[in-house]
Amino acid sequence: MEVKLAKNYGFCFGVRRAIKLAESKPNSITLGPLIHNAKEIERLKENFNVVVNENIQEVKPNQEVIIRTHGITKNDLEELKKKTNNITDATCPFVTKPQEICERMSKEGYQIIIFGDVKHPEVKGVMSYCQNEPVVIDKLEALKDIKISDKVALISQTTKNVEIFLKIADFLIPQCSECRVFNTICNATFDNQDSARSLAKEVDVMVIVGGKNSANTKQLYNISKEFCQDCYLIEEAQELQETWFIGKQICGVSAGASTPNWIIDKVVERLKSFK
Amino acid sequence: MEVKLAKNYGFCFGVRRAIKLAESKPNSITLGPLIHNAKEIERLKENFNVVVNENIQEVKPNQEVIIRTHGITKNDLEELKKKTNNITDATCPFVTKPQEICERMSKEGYQIIIFGDVKHPEVKGVMSYCQNEPVVIDKLEALKDIKISDKVALISQTTKNVEIFLKIADFLIPQCSECRVFNTICNATFDNQDSARSLAKEVDVMVIVGGKNSANTKQLYNISKEFCQDCYLIEEAQELQETWFIGKQICGVSAGASTPNWIIDKVVERLKSFK
Repeated sequence: MEVKLAKNYGFCFGVRRAIKLAESKPNSITLGPLIHNAKEIERLKENFNVVVNENIQEVKPNQEVIIRTHGITKNDLEELKKKTNNITDATCPFVTKPQEICERMSKEGYQIIIFGDVKHPEVKGVMSYCQNEPVVIDKLEALKDIKISDKVALISQTTKNVEIFLKIADFLIPQCSECRVFNTICNATFDNQDSARSLAKEVDVMVIVGGKNSANTKQLYNISKEFCQDCYLIEEAQELQETWFIGKQICGVSAGASTPNWIIDKVVERLKSFK
Repeated sequence: MEVKLAKNYGFCFGVRRAIKLAESKPNSITLGPLIHNAKEIERLKENFNVVVNENIQEVKPNQEVIIRTHGITKNDLEELKKKTNNITDATCPFVTKPQEICERMSKEGYQIIIFGDVKHPEVKGVMSYCQNEPVVIDKLEALKDIKISDKVALISQTTKNVEIFLKIADFLIPQCSECRVFNTICNATFDNQDSARSLAKEVDVMVIVGGKNSANTKQLYNISKEFCQDCYLIEEAQELQETWFIGKQICGVSAGASTPNWIIDKVVERLKSFK
């Protein structure tokens, strides 16, 4: 069977950078999972003894600690600095940016509105840089009962949908005298989505590789499913079943932003072995 | 015939303020027409000897000069200050605001994008406060070939359409990392439009009073015409023809933002005299 990879798939810049940093700091701990891919976290543990620990209290004096791609809260960072001088910051630079914007804009007196999921570690980190309580909304409707200030700064979680972000901006602009819109959406996720969409249109069957609890992987699956009825979401090569591909000529492959190439390579290899 | 006035019509805040200022400065000159209504300009000339003069060179030493509601360019203001100390600034405060924004934002390195008519005196004034050449567009399509900078400040002419303004913002936001949107659209024009629309729906015939070359008056006419087929645009009471109102029960009246009450009153009086 012919196997065709999407033009863009897998690791984004921030994940690639975080893994390089983790590999360069063996025997360290990460505060929470470095990225949203259990297999890769496992590999880092096995090959580099980089282990996950959620609890800052358990950090030993001057232990090597890596900050996850999604960042941590300002308070946690201060706590951590009291415990150790050996901190490697693997926060994605696209996440550091909204943190900085949030801090600067709230200092300048802007009402901060964050388009994002209030429970997501990235958003928790960004929120913590706000001097006052920010408004966090995951949909336009959530803004309807909020009192809008005269000067507003609008920021987005990096992986949010740009269309909804614009609708939120359109709702805010007529209500305030200044709406400072910071486009903090990362293009990488959308490049993967566009490529999966194109590929799904030209193949008989699609395989999406990624964590089953990864939001961006699920989005790739849903988009592909729209254009290619036979679509499968797997975490690793072993899950592939030969019967799925009977009578298929071309199989498309894409992968979430936290899916490492070594997992994708194994999937492609196994797919190619099918007749 | 019953005559019903629109809930909001006629003079906006800036025009009302400018006329009060002009009446308090008899024997002065205005640089260009104070407002866009020839009849009112004529009245100011007759009753207060306030006359229009476009040419700064002709200003006599320390002559009383009034700056028009639409503002003048920064250079003209400097020239004027060399000629006279007796300057009354009747620039609408809603126009002064975009001038200030333009100056401040261009100093801070933002690319200035003005949604407006490049030939309109208001826009010429606002543009002149920009340290570099601003981009001036009167429709979204005009932006297509423009190189968008990373940091953009978007400003609008006070009387522009908010829907198109939002479309321009939506086009810019995904292309830059920061889009600072200043909502400099004046609500007064839109209040008049909304009121004309509501009134046109419930009357048999509509009369719009205002300068025939006034853009906002023409907009009122077009909106009313949509909902009330018998719609007339007049500059003064004498133009009314009794035959227009044969068999009509209720006549709605609205007026442009530069139409003085004394003209509207005469129109209403004449309409009421019709059977």
